[in-house]
Amino acid sequence: MPDARHFTESLDLLKERLLRLGGLAQQRVAAGVHALVSGDTGALQALKQGDDALNQLQLEIDDACFTLLALQQPVATDLRLIVSAIKISADLERVGDLAVNIAEAAEPYLTYRPVKALVDLPRMGEIAQEMLAGALHAFLTNDAGAAKSVLAADDRLDALKEQVFRELLTYMLGNPATVAPAVELLFISRHLERVGDHATNIAEDVIFITEARDVRHSRRK
Amino acid sequence: MPDARHFTESLDLLKERLLRLGGLAQQRVAAGVHALVSGDTGALQALKQGDDALNQLQLEIDDACFTLLALQQPVATDLRLIVSAIKISADLERVGDLAVNIAEAAEPYLTYRPVKALVDLPRMGEIAQEMLAGALHAFLTNDAGAAKSVLAADDRLDALKEQVFRELLTYMLGNPATVAPAVELLFISRHLERVGDHATNIAEDVIFITEARDVRHSRRK
Repeated sequence: MPDARHFTESLDLLKERLLRLGGLAQQRVAAGVHALVSGDTGALQALKQGDDALNQLQLEIDDACFTLLALQQPVATDLRLIVSAIKISADLERVGDLAVNIAEAAEPYLTYRPVKALVDLPRMGEIAQEMLAGALHAFLTNDAGAAKSVLAADDRLDALKEQVFRELLTYMLGNPATVAPAVELLFISRHLERVGDHATNIAEDVIFITEARDVRHSRRK
Repeated sequence: MPDARHFTESLDLLKERLLRLGGLAQQRVAAGVHALVSGDTGALQALKQGDDALNQLQLEIDDACFTLLALQQPVATDLRLIVSAIKISADLERVGDLAVNIAEAAEPYLTYRPVKALVDLPRMGEIAQEMLAGALHAFLTNDAGAAKSVLAADDRLDALKEQVFRELLTYMLGNPATVAPAVELLFISRHLERVGDHATNIAEDVIFITEARDVRHSRRK
C-alpha cells in the first residue's frame, strides 16, 4: 500500500475514533440529565462508575496521534489536524467526567422533595449536546461555518444558566427547605455550562484547522 | 549555529515561556482570592478585564510548538514535550479564565454582609497555587516524583472543598440572609477545585513526558 494512502486511511480512522468518543461523551451527558429528571438512581450509579470504553478510546486516539506525528512527520493542515485531535480527545474525556459530576449532584438532589419541575436544566442539556454534536460534525466536514454556529449557541447556554440561577435563588430565599436540593441543581447547571465550554473549545479547534488562524482570543475575554 | 543546538535553545525558550505563563496564571488566582478576602473591588474589576499578556503568551507558545513540530520533526521525548506544551498552555490559560470566574463570584459576594471569616477558601487557594507551582517545577526539572506529589495534593483540595460545602450549607439552612452570599462562596470553592484539576492535568503530562506512560486513567475513575 502506498504511504500516502496509508496516511489518509490513518487520518480517516482517527476522525472516526474521535466521533465515536464524542458520541460516548454525549450519551453520558444525556444519560445524566435523563436520570436526574426521571429519578433513575440506578442509572446515576452506573454513570458514577465511570466509562472505561471512553477512557480507553482517548488513550488509543492519543497513541495514534503520537505515532502519526513521529512516523509521518506531517505538516500544514495534517499537522494541525493531528495536534487538534489530541486536544479534542482531552475535551471529550472531560465531558465524560462532567457526566460523573452531574450524577454526583443528581444523587443527593433526588433524596429531597423536588424544588420545581425541571425544564431549563434539560433544555441546557439539549443545547450542550447539540453544541457537541455540531462541533464534531464541523470537525468531520472541515466546516468553519458550522463551527461558528457552535460558538453562537454558547451564548444561549450562558443565558439559560443565568436564568436558572436567578430562579433557584428565589426559591432558596423563599423556602429554606429548598436550599440543599437547589444547590445541587445550581451545580448541575454549571456542569452543563462546562460541557458547552468544551464544545466551544472543539469548535475553535475546527476553525483553527480549516482557517489556520487562531480565533481563541479574538472572541474570548 | 548547528541545528541541534538551535533546537535545544528553542526548547529552552519554550519551557521558559510556559513558566512565565504559569506565573501569570498563578498570580491571577492569588489576586482573585486576595481581593475576595480584603474586599478589594477595584482588583476584582481589573481581573475581570481579562489578561491580554496571558492570552498572547498562550498563542506564542502554540505558534512556537507548531513551528518546531513542522520544521524539526522531533521524535520520542522531544515530541512528547512539545505536544504536552500545547496541552499545558491550554490548561494555564483556563486557570487564567478561572481567576475571572472567581472575580465574577466575589463581586456580588462583597455586596452582602459577610457570611463568616474566610479561612478555608484562602487555604484552598494556597493549595491550588502550590499545586500549579509544583506541576510547573516538575515540568522544568523533568521530575516525575514531584509531579506525583501534585496528584496527592489534589485529594487535600477535594477534602477542603467538601468541608467548605458542608459548612456553608449549615449557614444557609440556619439563616436565609446567608443564602445568596454563600452560594457565591460555593462557586468560588468549585473554581479553586478546578485550578487544582488543571495542575493535576499538567502533572500527568509531566509523568507522561518523563516516563512515557500514560497515568491518566490508572488513577482517575
